[in-house]
Amino acid sequence: MAYSIGLDYGTNSTRVLVVDCADGREIGLATIDYPSGEQGVFLDASNHLLARQHPADYLFALEHGVKAALEAARKAVPGFSSADVVGIGVDGTGSSPLPVDARNKPLALSSRFARNLNAFCWLWKDHTSIPEAALITQMARRKRPRYLARIGGIYSSEWFWAKIWHCLKTDPTVFDAAHSWVELSDYIPSVLAGANSPSQIVRGVCMAGHKAMYAKEWGGLPDEGFLAALDPKLAALRDRLYTAAHDASTPAGKLCPKWARQLGLPIGIPIAIGEMDVHYGAIACGVEEGTLVKVIGTSTCDCAVAVASKRVANVPGICGIVNGSILPGYIGIEAGQSAVGDIFKWFVERVLGDASAHVRLTKEASALRPGQSGLLALDWNNGNRTILVDQSLTGLLLGQTLYTTPAEIYRALIEATAFGARAIIERLREYGVPVRRIVCSGGIAEKNSLLMQIYADVTGCEIRVSRSSQACALGAAVSATVAAGVHRDFKTAQAAMTGLKSKTYRPIRENQIIYDKLYAQYKLLHDAFGNVVKTANLGRVMKDLLALKTQS
Amino acid sequence: MAYSIGLDYGTNSTRVLVVDCADGREIGLATIDYPSGEQGVFLDASNHLLARQHPADYLFALEHGVKAALEAARKAVPGFSSADVVGIGVDGTGSSPLPVDARNKPLALSSRFARNLNAFCWLWKDHTSIPEAALITQMARRKRPRYLARIGGIYSSEWFWAKIWHCLKTDPTVFDAAHSWVELSDYIPSVLAGANSPSQIVRGVCMAGHKAMYAKEWGGLPDEGFLAALDPKLAALRDRLYTAAHDASTPAGKLCPKWARQLGLPIGIPIAIGEMDVHYGAIACGVEEGTLVKVIGTSTCDCAVAVASKRVANVPGICGIVNGSILPGYIGIEAGQSAVGDIFKWFVERVLGDASAHVRLTKEASALRPGQSGLLALDWNNGNRTILVDQSLTGLLLGQTLYTTPAEIYRALIEATAFGARAIIERLREYGVPVRRIVCSGGIAEKNSLLMQIYADVTGCEIRVSRSSQACALGAAVSATVAAGVHRDFKTAQAAMTGLKSKTYRPIRENQIIYDKLYAQYKLLHDAFGNVVKTANLGRVMKDLLALKTQS
Repeated sequence: MAYSIGLDYGTNSTRVLVVDCADGREIGLATIDYPSGEQGVFLDASNHLLARQHPADYLFALEHGVKAALEAARKAVPGFSSADVVGIGVDGTGSSPLPVDARNKPLALSSRFARNLNAFCWLWKDHTSIPEAALITQMARRKRPRYLARIGGIYSSEWFWAKIWHCLKTDPTVFDAAHSWVELSDYIPSVLAGANSPSQIVRGVCMAGHKAMYAKEWGGLPDEGFLAALDPKLAALRDRLYTAAHDASTPAGKLCPKWARQLGLPIGIPIAIGEMDVHYGAIACGVEEGTLVKVIGTSTCDCAVAVASKRVANVPGICGIVNGSILPGYIGIEAGQSAVGDIFKWFVERVLGDASAHVRLTKEASALRPGQSGLLALDWNNGNRTILVDQSLTGLLLGQTLYTTPAEIYRALIEATAFGARAIIERLREYGVPVRRIVCSGGIAEKNSLLMQIYADVTGCEIRVSRSSQACALGAAVSATVAAGVHRDFKTAQAAMTGLKSKTYRPIRENQIIYDKLYAQYKLLHDAFGNVVKTANLGRVMKDLLALKTQS
Repeated sequence: MAYSIGLDYGTNSTRVLVVDCADGREIGLATIDYPSGEQGVFLDASNHLLARQHPADYLFALEHGVKAALEAARKAVPGFSSADVVGIGVDGTGSSPLPVDARNKPLALSSRFARNLNAFCWLWKDHTSIPEAALITQMARRKRPRYLARIGGIYSSEWFWAKIWHCLKTDPTVFDAAHSWVELSDYIPSVLAGANSPSQIVRGVCMAGHKAMYAKEWGGLPDEGFLAALDPKLAALRDRLYTAAHDASTPAGKLCPKWARQLGLPIGIPIAIGEMDVHYGAIACGVEEGTLVKVIGTSTCDCAVAVASKRVANVPGICGIVNGSILPGYIGIEAGQSAVGDIFKWFVERVLGDASAHVRLTKEASALRPGQSGLLALDWNNGNRTILVDQSLTGLLLGQTLYTTPAEIYRALIEATAFGARAIIERLREYGVPVRRIVCSGGIAEKNSLLMQIYADVTGCEIRVSRSSQACALGAAVSATVAAGVHRDFKTAQAAMTGLKSKTYRPIRENQIIYDKLYAQYKLLHDAFGNVVKTANLGRVMKDLLALKTQS
């Protein structure tokens, strides 16, 4: 018997999964909510852009999560022994960098910075660095256009350099105290491997390539001259970061004695390279050329791959095209929507003040026909990651009458995220990346068949759902299994350990016809407010929506 | 001692006021909620444009309202006798036409049509007649442009001819059964006067001029040729309507014995001409040249007057400029917003599902600074009456983040109605109608000091509030007092019987500066979605709102 463990560091909790390497059976699961902040996130009432996490929460989840998952496995499988665990894989949200000292200890764990939010982990959805991201984009356009070509043309405020530079500009004490910065998904493997210095961290190419403008072809991270043009201190930091980043064919290390003891696991088992949560999720969803994987959670990440020998065009607005991200031997392509589940959550919790309303609203919204509400929304409450790459965008709802109901608004918000998804697919296809079918994962994909059907109707694609409810953790475990040599490569491991649910969401022709019309209106608003066009003719939008409403 | 009675037929209830003719003291008030429909309004779940009322509710409110108000007066003033009542005045919502038979009996009161919504009163906010209004506008533009010049250039779906024509087209049985059609505000006086035939109804020039394209200069109602071009049956109806309409210097009749008995009032006392609710409200607010009266309720009506000798330009989008409407000897100018209180009501009742939330949200919204929410809304949930005169418009909310609160939305909706109010004032001034100060009336104006301050800040005008909570009913009573000859003219009666509360809302300079910027954004959206401009550049709207948010 051989088992592997996958750890998935999410926005509000960490999931730890113990998996049978033979067939992917999930024999132990633990979910550890982060004990600090608001559902694990530190906010600032005076600045809605800020979102931080405390590294102590990560270590808490590591210890308690692995122990609880092993305990669950012992209960579920008679004779299970943690001695049969052959590897550990870790994924995390990103770009979520945290400052560490020369001994690889997060600054936030020192008493000096224990209460300084700038010394915490800068969570992926932290958008405080909008000005810095804009300056980086501007500078790269002028001096290093190739840096931008593979990340969609615009550097995001969600990413590594923007966040670090914002820290440097607004809280230099923290910046100066940091010996290095490390992504959450690299930090946890480095802890497990017992790295005592940032130089010992084995960095994953996912975060490096997608978030830090790393590429082998230009010698790794952005060159010193470029960084010095931003700030000499950033250039000085470069040497204390890393020179190489790796795909999943390189492990992040071996489990150190201290953590082996603490977790009750064999010393020296391999730790897979850290990847972005959704990249490992894509592996568990059976990502291959032509299959778009959408991991639908608070936000959405879209992943696709193309064989590495193939030339993939630079796709404007697609936030990353990176050799070796997701799967070794493939070019990983990543896009995403800055908020999906978060928008529905906002509406029911913040606006309606009733966290339990999801079920009722979904039921009521299911009884509505496409176009019937006359509503149209933009899915930008948290900015637009793809294809506009602009965090300075906000939500929009249009078409309200005096009779508009919460269920109609709820459905319009779902449809808005579906339109956002379609915009991504159309952009990919436009640049030659094939999208023939969609595989989704995440709680929303499993639970909300209304949303899934709307996505099928809006995108015109057949949609399947990952068999596992913990696709990201499962993908991490798959990677650990490959690192341990139980399966000879990812293709074999995917075939053995992953699968899809039987239900297929097929586009309904009559809905597609209406959604094509609504999508055209969405695109009008998208291009007008997204600054794609300078002259928009919107005088018919409300009338056309009313006409659709009357017809439906 | 002399007393007069004012009846105010509103959207959800009728208010009856007994007033001391000497000083306007309100000694008896009764509010009668309409017993039928949803809060008095019959809706159609499959057609949100429809809004009807049952005429039996009007008669119910007449009898019970007058009796209850007299009873209240008897309790409040020792020695009060209904024999001292010298006149009755009536106002009503409009255009709210209802079909009557040859004996002036509403069709809805016959068993044949008792359940047919088309035989009910077509409430002002019924928008089922959008196509007919568009056709009337189109035909008038081609054949009789002067008909449109005094009503803002566009005939509204809220008005008399559009509604009657829609009935003719969609329910000819009702149309054919109708001997005539009468506005609610003319119908009630005709009942009190004992009119046994539509020919005996004395019609007010308010409804005729503002809603039915009546003007002395072209011989009354639109000519037969014009109506025949719409439909020959409309032309045939013309003769069964009226040839003359009157200002408030002509009474609508004398109280007939039957209703005098029923109400316990003296036979033969004068009944003032019926006016639109807000026109009588304007009189009670002390309307005069330079004073804009805003009656803020479910919707808003704006009234201004100019001395009749003065030439008033045709003002595009201002829905009526009528000689003798509001005050005899003056040109009455009317504008309005299709929904104000209705929008706040929609948000708290339909969206939040908590009718009691107004107080809490107002309190929370008061703690916000202008621009702080980053939100911007359009006040078009019920279309736009002025200055776009387009019911095929809908609401819009923009600037939502994942942290947007109900109080922020509530404030944005208030601000949207304030921006709509400013658009009207700017249009009036642009065409030479002076607006130097604003007097408001209505429950919202009395209760919501946040809204009043926002209106002062957005419009830049000082705002006062009518002393009376029942300005429309009071104005009707003032008119009855003049009809009874107790005061020699309206100016004298206004001076004796009406007044303002002491509180003055003055614009706060720092708020004005921000609201000027927000209004500029509002106008961008207004002109883009209102089809005023064909090319709008909206790419900065969200960013500019975020910038204001950051600064505030």
